Amino acid sequence: MTYTTQMLEIHHASAVDPHTVASAINALTDCAQACMVDIDADLGVSNLSEMVKCIRLCQHCTDVCATTARVISRPAEYDAQVTVPLLEACLAICKACADECEVHARHHEHCRVCAEACRDCESHCRQLLATLK
Amino acid sequence: MTYTTQMLEIHHASAVDPHTVASAINALTDCAQACMVDIDADLGVSNLSEMVKCIRLCQHCTDVCATTARVISRPAEYDAQVTVPLLEACLAICKACADECEVHARHHEHCRVCAEACRDCESHCRQLLATLK
Amino acid sequence: MTYTTQMLEIHHASAVDPHTVASAINALTDCAQACMVDIDADLGVSNLSEMVKCIRLCQHCTDVCATTARVISRPAEYDAQVTVPLLEACLAICKACADECEVHARHHEHCRVCAEACRDCESHCRQLLATLK
Amino acid sequence: MTYTTQMLEIHHASAVDPHTVASAINALTDCAQACMVDIDADLGVSNLSEMVKCIRLCQHCTDVCATTARVISRPAEYDAQVTVPLLEACLAICKACADECEVHARHHEHCRVCAEACRDCESHCRQLLATLK
Repeated sequence: MTYTTQMLEIHHASAVDPHTVASAINALTDCAQACMVDIDADLGVSNLSEMVKCIRLCQHCTDVCATTARVISRPAEYDAQVTVPLLEACLAICKACADECEVHARHHEHCRVCAEACRDCESHCRQLLATLK
Repeated sequence: MTYTTQMLEIHHASAVDPHTVASAINALTDCAQACMVDIDADLGVSNLSEMVKCIRLCQHCTDVCATTARVISRPAEYDAQVTVPLLEACLAICKACADECEVHARHHEHCRVCAEACRDCESHCRQLLATLK
Repeated sequence: MTYTTQMLEIHHASAVDPHTVASAINALTDCAQACMVDIDADLGVSNLSEMVKCIRLCQHCTDVCATTARVISRPAEYDAQVTVPLLEACLAICKACADECEVHARHHEHCRVCAEACRDCESHCRQLLATLK
Repeated sequence: MTYTTQMLEIHHASAVDPHTVASAINALTDCAQACMVDIDADLGVSNLSEMVKCIRLCQHCTDVCATTARVISRPAEYDAQVTVPLLEACLAICKACADECEVHARHHEHCRVCAEACRDCESHCRQLLATLK
């Protein structure tokens, strides 16, 4: 069990189940990290010019996931008008990034794993959105 | 003229006017900074217990503004499904944060200035959204 | 095994053992998250005025840990002149934050867990520093 | 005058001159932004394979500058053991990034401007370090 999960079990400050939030946060931070490593790996491949879109989407994905994790880590001042569109943006970039990584998955193992991290995160965002709306 | 503005004039990679984007980025980063200093100042006031909501909203505002600035600083892989909800989340938190800071503006000069930074940013997000939609 | 760990096993771009880096990244992101939840919990306690130092240190800790994780997630362009002082700053803030959280650990369960996350991260930074120097 | 400058004039919480801090923050955020746009521009050039080092250094520079700005925006809980090595890491990455951008400055206008932003930030970090030590 991560510290995040333990912390949210103790600091149970919203109507949303703390385990749903904690597992979303873990998916978000792991996806943000995977995308960061993916960029570093993409920049070293021989077919670099074909990886430009992948690098760009991974950059957006890292930033949006990391900030979404921060916002939902602070449940006490929850505001649907902020959290809902933020999760929608996050879901959209995770989907776009997974789609693009899958294009390269056969040739680049790092893209195959990154695509999984993005899909996983996309699905966690979708679940959390369903709970919040 | 900031370096951001110069950079976006040179790297003119989207259909959106670079000056609109650059001035939105400047408003976003300045708002993120103002909120960060506001939290530090709020934590030092004598009526601290009345500032909790303000601190919480400023934390969200800092993070959402900073990430929105990052995403729109990379115009080459623009995706409306990501940028539009992100700007909507940003606009909502800037508005909420400005509203709360205004409550304290009469007693705390730092909240008065922070409210202005949030309003300014809210209006830049609105303008950019109107251009993108 | 997190996606971060899988990614760094594949993208083995530096002389440093990928498992050491991956477990440091996991400790850093988990500590950053724990501190963020701790701030939200601190802001809700009845003895709020005694928690100001804790909140302030947790804010610094979150930001320094999150950025240190980002930098070491990109091993291909490793520069000791950047990574070593960054890890030193990170170690120092984790230690300061753990010390302060421990003061409140008896009364606030969330501070007890956050102190553990900080100590864990401090120890991972120390190990990674020993490898790099 | 930016909102950051106004905020730090009001929230005068450390021994350091607020104008020195505010102008360092402005240089740090502008440098972080310039590097982000530089990456986006680099990814679009025809000699992409020669820009890999530049992209990698700009990524580190963005993150370290943005976090340094956050930490020095909260002067009330200042700790030299954190701030000094953080500024040293920041100075080192700004210098490395400026050196690399200058290599490409003759061919890429966006690298010429980014190098200036990095040099400017390097010099502000140096000045602030001299004040703190």
